[in-house]
Amino acid sequence: MVSHTQLTSAMQRAITLARRGPADDVNPQVGCVIIDDQGATVAEGFHRGSGSDHAEVNALKNLDPALNPAGLTAAITLEPCNHTGTTPPCAKTLHTAGIGTIVYGQPDVGTHSSGGATELFARGHRIIAGIESSDTAQLISDWHARTGQTRSGVIAKWAQSLDGRLAASDGTSQWITSSAARRHVHVQRAPADVIVTTTATVAADNPSLTARDTDGQLLVPPQDQPLPVIFGTGDVTQEATIHRHPALAHHGLTQTPQFSGANLASDLARLAEFTGPAPRIFVEAGPTFITALLQQQLADELLIYTAPILLGGTHHAVGDLGVSTLLEAHSYTFGGVHRLDTDLLTTLRKDH
Amino acid sequence: MVSHTQLTSAMQRAITLARRGPADDVNPQVGCVIIDDQGATVAEGFHRGSGSDHAEVNALKNLDPALNPAGLTAAITLEPCNHTGTTPPCAKTLHTAGIGTIVYGQPDVGTHSSGGATELFARGHRIIAGIESSDTAQLISDWHARTGQTRSGVIAKWAQSLDGRLAASDGTSQWITSSAARRHVHVQRAPADVIVTTTATVAADNPSLTARDTDGQLLVPPQDQPLPVIFGTGDVTQEATIHRHPALAHHGLTQTPQFSGANLASDLARLAEFTGPAPRIFVEAGPTFITALLQQQLADELLIYTAPILLGGTHHAVGDLGVSTLLEAHSYTFGGVHRLDTDLLTTLRKDH
Repeated sequence: MVSHTQLTSAMQRAITLARRGPADDVNPQVGCVIIDDQGATVAEGFHRGSGSDHAEVNALKNLDPALNPAGLTAAITLEPCNHTGTTPPCAKTLHTAGIGTIVYGQPDVGTHSSGGATELFARGHRIIAGIESSDTAQLISDWHARTGQTRSGVIAKWAQSLDGRLAASDGTSQWITSSAARRHVHVQRAPADVIVTTTATVAADNPSLTARDTDGQLLVPPQDQPLPVIFGTGDVTQEATIHRHPALAHHGLTQTPQFSGANLASDLARLAEFTGPAPRIFVEAGPTFITALLQQQLADELLIYTAPILLGGTHHAVGDLGVSTLLEAHSYTFGGVHRLDTDLLTTLRKDH
Repeated sequence: MVSHTQLTSAMQRAITLARRGPADDVNPQVGCVIIDDQGATVAEGFHRGSGSDHAEVNALKNLDPALNPAGLTAAITLEPCNHTGTTPPCAKTLHTAGIGTIVYGQPDVGTHSSGGATELFARGHRIIAGIESSDTAQLISDWHARTGQTRSGVIAKWAQSLDGRLAASDGTSQWITSSAARRHVHVQRAPADVIVTTTATVAADNPSLTARDTDGQLLVPPQDQPLPVIFGTGDVTQEATIHRHPALAHHGLTQTPQFSGANLASDLARLAEFTGPAPRIFVEAGPTFITALLQQQLADELLIYTAPILLGGTHHAVGDLGVSTLLEAHSYTFGGVHRLDTDLLTTLRKDH
């Protein structure tokens, strides 16, 4: 079993390798280190610029084919791409190579290239996102700037039945979706800078809101965990688990920040005070807050986990959006569509 | 352009070829004839039993590789399989071969093998279902009997937004989904024996309910079109387009049959009076009827066309199902998931 220390040290080495690539290329600088189950480095690679091998492919070419790939971990500074450009998709290449675990620093936010981690997750690979997120973010910030991309934005996720409900009429809603879908949410939390929830959700569920594995282990160390922030005017008990979130101490906070959310857009904008400009904000809240967010068109990305059940009734995942005619419908574009065990994950991006 | 006569004659030849295969195999007898854009036969094949090439593969091996495949039409007695068994999926093989148009007689209803036509449609092939449906049904009825499969059942389809709505608050709902999704519905109508609608839908939309191409041409000849049947107690005007449905004359009817639907299960069972035992029933109706069907758990298959929009509000695709707790949720299994232009088609089967 690879330790967190071994993962971060592999990622630091991948960052060093990445910097050997050209800093002014159309592609980002990316490094990749493959380690075995003892944490020992077995292959390294980096991207030498557009048209040459991506870092993962470069590392795989240096890998001893006699090693059992299922026991290996690839640490990559950037999420493997899911795009056939001048080279095949790295997500597919890693899958074909059979590398068991994929660890990455920054999410790929390209319209055509993103979704590699989800693809690999759906195909049964173990995925850890957000390792050494500050340093990997620094590494590619120049690239984001020169290509006009941004990793920032508001991501709204919810689980629903086929007919858009999230609970039966008695309100029972725990575990609508499969354990695979619930694990996947944790992987999605890791690369976020902020995780937004509400006083209602804290009161109802008392969530810890860490990005963690099924065994309760943190997926990324405390300094890379997203900062929890509570929206709403309700009281939050001092005993709430969220106040013990490991990211709080890293930010020099003793208590979870709280905003009224009365002006949702400006309160979301203020989150940059904690994180620096353009944070990636992951929202985990109930239907009232999600509906308000959607109604004001403040979500840039949607993650919808759909369970193959029908519930009917009045517990809608999304309430009234003030859409009076079809021409006013809020329009998105399907990104990835993935099967997670019995469920379906659809990712959508806001049309602007 | 291949004519209907040329298609039916190619299919009759495919049926003749299919009968050369073993009649007692674990696999069905299947034949395949490939014709060019003048209707001339350019290759033939059939299935010689489990372990040997499927009919499509057999025909492709006999095809002159110098011919442009995009201009060719493969007429197959059974929907190409979507399943990797002892041989690769025929849907994939036909796609790789680049055959432009796929015409088939019977839908593949196998849990693992179905979905080939939808897969091919999603990849841009032209698909026509239900050609020579009586003769191709006869051909494989023995196989259905001996493998315990059935092509019968009730298929409910609807279009919805991401949040399970089918209209904005002013009721505007026309063209929620893309033209690709709407064309796909016609392909799904073709292999049905009966197409069920309601007095409300006839009054609101005056549909013709034929399986037809975008240019208005019938996808299958009148004798292979599904018989329209109206459910509901409302009056249907003599001028309704549905009364001119070409399948009515074939069944010796001058008017569309109407059932009250007061006892939905028994009225659906009575449809066999028109078709023979175990008909395939395709339901095209509004949310009230769809909800009643789902509430009584009478739908064996769901086709949900999802548009990438949010609508909110009160026009739900599915209403109250009488599910009071999560344990009573109606449970399905995802079959195929396909992108149709901007939309998503998910196919589900009822868990029994």
